[in-house]
Amino acid sequence: MDRILRCAHAYTLEDDGLGYLEKVDIFIDGGKIIKIIPSSQENKAEEIIDLTHHLVLPGFIDAHMHTGMNILRGLAQDTSHWMMHGLGPFAQVVSQEEELLGSKLAILEAARAGTTSFGDYETNMDEVCGFLKKMGLRGQITATVREALHRVYAPGEIYEFDQKMGEESLQRNLALFEKWNGKDKMRIFFGPQGADFLSAELLLRLQRLAKEKHTKIHMHVQQGDRETYQIQKRYGKRPVAFLKELGYLDKSLLAVHLTDCLDDEVKIVAQSGANMIFCPASIGIIDGLVPSADVFQKEGGMVALGSDQAPGNNSHNLIKEMYCAALFTKIKRQDPEAMPAWKVLRMATIEGARACGVDESVGSLEVGKQADIIAIDLRRPSMSPVFTHPMRNLVPNLVYSARGDEVDFSMVGGDIILREGSFIKDELEELFEELKGVPESIGHRAEAGFNEVAGSNYRWMKEGLL
Amino acid sequence: MDRILRCAHAYTLEDDGLGYLEKVDIFIDGGKIIKIIPSSQENKAEEIIDLTHHLVLPGFIDAHMHTGMNILRGLAQDTSHWMMHGLGPFAQVVSQEEELLGSKLAILEAARAGTTSFGDYETNMDEVCGFLKKMGLRGQITATVREALHRVYAPGEIYEFDQKMGEESLQRNLALFEKWNGKDKMRIFFGPQGADFLSAELLLRLQRLAKEKHTKIHMHVQQGDRETYQIQKRYGKRPVAFLKELGYLDKSLLAVHLTDCLDDEVKIVAQSGANMIFCPASIGIIDGLVPSADVFQKEGGMVALGSDQAPGNNSHNLIKEMYCAALFTKIKRQDPEAMPAWKVLRMATIEGARACGVDESVGSLEVGKQADIIAIDLRRPSMSPVFTHPMRNLVPNLVYSARGDEVDFSMVGGDIILREGSFIKDELEELFEELKGVPESIGHRAEAGFNEVAGSNYRWMKEGLL
Repeated sequence: MDRILRCAHAYTLEDDGLGYLEKVDIFIDGGKIIKIIPSSQENKAEEIIDLTHHLVLPGFIDAHMHTGMNILRGLAQDTSHWMMHGLGPFAQVVSQEEELLGSKLAILEAARAGTTSFGDYETNMDEVCGFLKKMGLRGQITATVREALHRVYAPGEIYEFDQKMGEESLQRNLALFEKWNGKDKMRIFFGPQGADFLSAELLLRLQRLAKEKHTKIHMHVQQGDRETYQIQKRYGKRPVAFLKELGYLDKSLLAVHLTDCLDDEVKIVAQSGANMIFCPASIGIIDGLVPSADVFQKEGGMVALGSDQAPGNNSHNLIKEMYCAALFTKIKRQDPEAMPAWKVLRMATIEGARACGVDESVGSLEVGKQADIIAIDLRRPSMSPVFTHPMRNLVPNLVYSARGDEVDFSMVGGDIILREGSFIKDELEELFEELKGVPESIGHRAEAGFNEVAGSNYRWMKEGLL
Repeated sequence: MDRILRCAHAYTLEDDGLGYLEKVDIFIDGGKIIKIIPSSQENKAEEIIDLTHHLVLPGFIDAHMHTGMNILRGLAQDTSHWMMHGLGPFAQVVSQEEELLGSKLAILEAARAGTTSFGDYETNMDEVCGFLKKMGLRGQITATVREALHRVYAPGEIYEFDQKMGEESLQRNLALFEKWNGKDKMRIFFGPQGADFLSAELLLRLQRLAKEKHTKIHMHVQQGDRETYQIQKRYGKRPVAFLKELGYLDKSLLAVHLTDCLDDEVKIVAQSGANMIFCPASIGIIDGLVPSADVFQKEGGMVALGSDQAPGNNSHNLIKEMYCAALFTKIKRQDPEAMPAWKVLRMATIEGARACGVDESVGSLEVGKQADIIAIDLRRPSMSPVFTHPMRNLVPNLVYSARGDEVDFSMVGGDIILREGSFIKDELEELFEELKGVPESIGHRAEAGFNEVAGSNYRWMKEGLL
């Protein structure tokens, strides 16, 4: 027996509830949960970890991230035309090495707030997998596949496709799959970036590959009016209708955002058996909109949460994402009972795992599952006082009050990541060293583009408002 | 010379901008800022505090809090009819001693995230003032004045008034003013709870008192449909129209919430010279609504931020409040440029100070003002990387990414409150001791009421969803 976690309050997230358990010992052996029984001094192990002042939960699953973009945190909010006017001038000058620094920083930020599974999605993912492995973290990783050339398009212009680029990115995705899938806590998905960025032929090839390899298609779906415009121009219909006709809507699809979907289109996707990733904070900042995750769930679809990328969202913190999922939906529906705390906690854990197709191994605390476990320190003002009767306030306090720093302990597949709020393997000092001079260099390269675009942040910088 | 704060990045919040300064020394003497000049080894003082890895700002002003209710954190969210079905069963059994414990916890929580000025508002404020004094914190404190009896009213029933209760609460407010106003960093306001809870006569007496004493009226205004119903029934008009006719809308009024106001009513209040307190997180959870602070500002009114109370908001963290002010307004207007980072930072500092009428002494870093200063640690993933050119991302990172624990240092009137993220006077251990058994006791007393109301949390508790 490796370890016992001695818990005062644990939520297993089993089945369709939260599975609250009081005073239990969770036994960990070989990286898995092998027993959960009432706490007792009789229970013995090599190490007993005292979590009796804690709230114990399955680790959080962040299903959709572009961690590399984190090197550009805080540079693209408060702006219309986010992609072109906000992110564009910076994104076009960033190197692969700089993105990797951003990824490392984002991963540490997220892990510090309880994320144990990372849904990263970018062109070059091999080194990110390497860093996750080094830290002992879990990944559901996707490599971007795309044929549309990266260049400035005139308004109304149809994207220019480059078959060679498409083929190369597909081969990179395939190579990533062969190298990492099923190894070192990694799962690899296939990543057509969006229906507008690939030909129908390449979309279908990827779908066949995903089915053949028993993995998922992870794709942005109807994520904005630019996508809708492109698909309508090319195929005479909106993206959801196009994907439905193509036979793309089924349980192999993990559909991200659905920002530009009407509720009826959201229903079509949910009814198809596809699942959804909801990135409330990112879409709130980028578009001022709230995708209809609540409608998706009502139709029986599974919804995972994602922190997306830091120049949009500006942070990677699943506790904040749960908060935004709940609050933004309440505000959208003008209904305080919409999207309660228990629902968003399920999205960050078991429902997220089901959406990503990894619930056989993670997402809940159950015998036989991987030991991906976090503990929140209850001896913090933000988590106090603790009521258990006639109502437990532990989950509402986590969702509506916690900041992220209350996560005190975490473990992934039995490997300890955080103890007393500190990383076992601390990469931060080294990372800050590597970051020296990087923002200055990127800033220098981005300056001409930033000035040319002359967006809201350019104006506010001139006016002394930044 | 007492102290020099050696700063890499400081925002003074002077005038109408953010007042960014690079590499400056802020000189503190006698509790005040006496000089801000370029950093130099030549500058000497008794103590030089190194804030060269920090973002330095004026301390945050939380203009509207009911800290005592914090003893009930997490017990009333996700519910319709918040006051009756959520808070009611618990609030009616809480003792004054228990509320004081809640206040202390809330004050420490808020101070840890950078709040230096506390706008607490409750019946018994004397001991809260004592605790703020002990901690070295600043208060703009209000005692509740009310004539409407606290009892369950039938739907449509007009509140029953008790003149004696009104008189007693007015005298308590007056006594608080005489004891604390102008002493120990305290300002005292007059606190008619809302137009529906007092007679027109008592409202006017309080206004005369406020003008005579050169202080503010701090009042909930058109905060919900129950208030609107009461005023319409009694006076045949909506609350804003009633208050306008009464001559209540002027610069002495600090109007909280305006939840149930149409935008035209918001404009009437703003044009009157009255100021507003915006509590986005609290109203988001309680009502699923977003008051029109943006409209108020467009009409030239000043808007302060407030965290309200923890069984609604569930937390006291001005950084989170800035985030919610920005995001909720963007979502309400479906406009990502609405309510940018710089605007909400001003609301948390200088604009909040102007709204509360305390800008002659706090809200910005200026020579002659009180030294209320906080510093955010930039060596955290959530605040990294730092760009200064061609765009500074410090303020966007603070508003959209920081959690609260990045606040590393704070000072109020020159007295140091936090150093390296820890309180100089640590009351937490003692407070957790005092809290032992309190939630169990309140829970026991609240149980019958909780079961009788049978609201959403009662159902979810039964269903294992809490």
